[in-house]
Amino acid sequence: MDVETGTSSGPELLLELDRDARRGLRAQLEDGLREAVRSGRLAAHLRLPATRALASDLGVSRRLVVDAYGQLLAEGYLVARHGAGTFVADAAGTSAAAAAEPRPSVPRFDFFPGFPDLANFPRQAWLRALRATLRDAPDRAFGYPDPRGALELRRAIAEHLRRVRGVVADPETIVVCSGAAQGFFLLARALDGGRIAVEDPGLPPHRAILAAQGARLVPLPVDERGARVDDLAALAAAEGPIDAVLVTPAHQSPTGVALAPPRRAALLAWAGENEGLVIEDDYDAEYRYDRAPLAAMQGLAADRVVYMGTVSKTLAPALRLGWLVLPARLVDRVVSEKLLADHGCATIEQLALAHLIAGGAYDRHLRQARRRYRARRDALVEAVARHLPGARVTGVAAGLHAIVRLGQAVDGMRLMQAAGRRSVGVYPLGYAYMDVRPVDDGLVLGYANLAEPAIEEGIRRLGRALEDL
Amino acid sequence: MDVETGTSSGPELLLELDRDARRGLRAQLEDGLREAVRSGRLAAHLRLPATRALASDLGVSRRLVVDAYGQLLAEGYLVARHGAGTFVADAAGTSAAAAAEPRPSVPRFDFFPGFPDLANFPRQAWLRALRATLRDAPDRAFGYPDPRGALELRRAIAEHLRRVRGVVADPETIVVCSGAAQGFFLLARALDGGRIAVEDPGLPPHRAILAAQGARLVPLPVDERGARVDDLAALAAAEGPIDAVLVTPAHQSPTGVALAPPRRAALLAWAGENEGLVIEDDYDAEYRYDRAPLAAMQGLAADRVVYMGTVSKTLAPALRLGWLVLPARLVDRVVSEKLLADHGCATIEQLALAHLIAGGAYDRHLRQARRRYRARRDALVEAVARHLPGARVTGVAAGLHAIVRLGQAVDGMRLMQAAGRRSVGVYPLGYAYMDVRPVDDGLVLGYANLAEPAIEEGIRRLGRALEDL
Repeated sequence: MDVETGTSSGPELLLELDRDARRGLRAQLEDGLREAVRSGRLAAHLRLPATRALASDLGVSRRLVVDAYGQLLAEGYLVARHGAGTFVADAAGTSAAAAAEPRPSVPRFDFFPGFPDLANFPRQAWLRALRATLRDAPDRAFGYPDPRGALELRRAIAEHLRRVRGVVADPETIVVCSGAAQGFFLLARALDGGRIAVEDPGLPPHRAILAAQGARLVPLPVDERGARVDDLAALAAAEGPIDAVLVTPAHQSPTGVALAPPRRAALLAWAGENEGLVIEDDYDAEYRYDRAPLAAMQGLAADRVVYMGTVSKTLAPALRLGWLVLPARLVDRVVSEKLLADHGCATIEQLALAHLIAGGAYDRHLRQARRRYRARRDALVEAVARHLPGARVTGVAAGLHAIVRLGQAVDGMRLMQAAGRRSVGVYPLGYAYMDVRPVDDGLVLGYANLAEPAIEEGIRRLGRALEDL
Repeated sequence: MDVETGTSSGPELLLELDRDARRGLRAQLEDGLREAVRSGRLAAHLRLPATRALASDLGVSRRLVVDAYGQLLAEGYLVARHGAGTFVADAAGTSAAAAAEPRPSVPRFDFFPGFPDLANFPRQAWLRALRATLRDAPDRAFGYPDPRGALELRRAIAEHLRRVRGVVADPETIVVCSGAAQGFFLLARALDGGRIAVEDPGLPPHRAILAAQGARLVPLPVDERGARVDDLAALAAAEGPIDAVLVTPAHQSPTGVALAPPRRAALLAWAGENEGLVIEDDYDAEYRYDRAPLAAMQGLAADRVVYMGTVSKTLAPALRLGWLVLPARLVDRVVSEKLLADHGCATIEQLALAHLIAGGAYDRHLRQARRRYRARRDALVEAVARHLPGARVTGVAAGLHAIVRLGQAVDGMRLMQAAGRRSVGVYPLGYAYMDVRPVDDGLVLGYANLAEPAIEEGIRRLGRALEDL
């Protein structure tokens, strides 16, 4: 990663490094910088000192400072501006710290890409599943959970994934986790400081989770055929050996493209030749509209691919349930980390989900949701054509969000603010890049949690907001 | 901690250290040793190489090896035998690895100390709370959870803790976590490699969680008046400054004694004078039988004490719900770690628990449970008097477990095995020490999950097992 070095006229950072501490100097420096940004001590838009100047102040190597800046750029705390230096990101950035704070007021027309239709959560079916669980579960189910997950759920997931995604799944190689967020956490711990190539653009919160557990992230560019797998060799030559590659092959997050079949093959070949790991985040695989679904890559190389899934897009993020299907050699390590993290997921909800899947209600809910989301996607495409002249929509063959290319680059933060004033929530694509692009022509718009009239009205207002700029 | 150095005739350990890795050498060495024990590559009872010999093999300082051995002794992977060296702990030890494996068959008369009465889980009340939640919760409750926990639950916990434990609790300083296990995880992350004094004997799984997140543990001895708080100064002089002290003042885990009032005062004075943190694990505070409950220490020094609670002893470990009441300055850091760990606990169960507490059903359940457990405790005391001549029961004024002093030291593993053959599960106190005591006269016996006739029969069989030895 190329890191701008800033100027020497930056502020005093008041960072203290403890050479005797168990944590390394780089981790301490990164923590110090994060704290300073979070606390507001380093205000938004402030220019950081040049890496050379800070290295000299702290008595550390310049490389260490460059790496630390690079890490915080990746996490969204900092922003590099070519030729101008490194700056503290806008407080409205996409860092973990920002996400921790309650959004002050949710806009009425919120195109947040992470949600399914929250009003469509199957409350009755879920209550029935809970009632059956509380009636039938043996007393021992109320003791400490199996850290791998309830066997009933692992069985149901294995059968489901085999059937709908072609995943080679065995209950013994599945670990149930608290959503994809904890899946990334567990994998980063198991990879133990390994170097992970991540799609760029990608999802900043996932990068922040990986980085917080010591993963070294390198950006793997994405084009209209998905992640540029051929770049891996050059990346490894420049950065060092790559231990794992995180991809979203079915529907790239956020661009929405599918990973082209030759690239899928090339990625698996890379994994085989380099003893590397592919992390296949199949986050919204359940939603396909215009094209035949491709089976998961994991089915082709179960010993090289970690498959990740979640109910956050099928039922609700609030359930905090996801799963990892692991190569056998990783199972013990991941289970051990899960045990040390929280001793396992709550049992009753796991059994309820197993009941929902095994009894067919999960499939029925998905079929109904697919129809609903397809209509909302069509409404988005129509509304963009009507209210955003010159814009086009991409990435809509699958999933719950689309990319809207405005046809002209805009300042993403200013657009967010202008849209916010009209009670519309939009999400600039530029902030999904590791090296944030404050000015870009892309927006990531989720459409699943808005009814068709709200989509129409939201896009109409977005058009007005663009005129405001 | 004094670490036996072993002999130089130990096995080749086949450990590799990567000097360029982001993780420190000590952490790598510890991980390598843990892996080797877990995988069975280092078999139980094997003598490890002398620290000097291993340091020379690996090209690291002897201090580093001594520290790593010390850490694994603390976690229960290794056992020191005075004058004989350092050995791999018995596979039946209390390490995290052992706990991860399903217990092959649960004994019929299992005195496992961690359980409430699992058959008494309030299934109907819980289902009613879930039904009310699924009926009343707004759609947004199905989105991503607040990483601090649902506000409704934080309010209910604050009110409950103020009322029953004298805790100074504000919903803004409470973080809901996945049981005490995740509470320890979050605190260790927030303390960031800090040195924590932990009661010795204590709970090995909790030590393992803290150590896995980089905490440096030092043992604080316990006597009949609780943790020997006066030893803190000497400990700090020997080991270095102590950042936090983990105590179980209401009912020491596992000895069952209460922290004497002068020691409570001395501990708070230590915290004030040393800018130290007290972690008050109030794990079974709801159960008091023969003495007036002392309010939580936190009420006296809310800026110096982290209060921890859980429903694992009041409802069920399977719910994975607990809470931290934090000094204000720690809240942001802990919330940030929670966000990066799993994005927050599942919302529906949090709302159900809030409903249970606020509606009074939680209090009713506790009152009923207290009567039930008191009768079981009395049954244990009577059964010991009848079937274990020379033994005495201590630590029974509160909680869900007792210490049985056999009147003679026995080999804990052999007794466990002999009892297991008679389908009785017992838990030697010697394995709760950081420096494991394979031969000791204490047993930790939980009585809450066994009906009175089962307690009577289990203790009768334990008497037979003792005769077998």
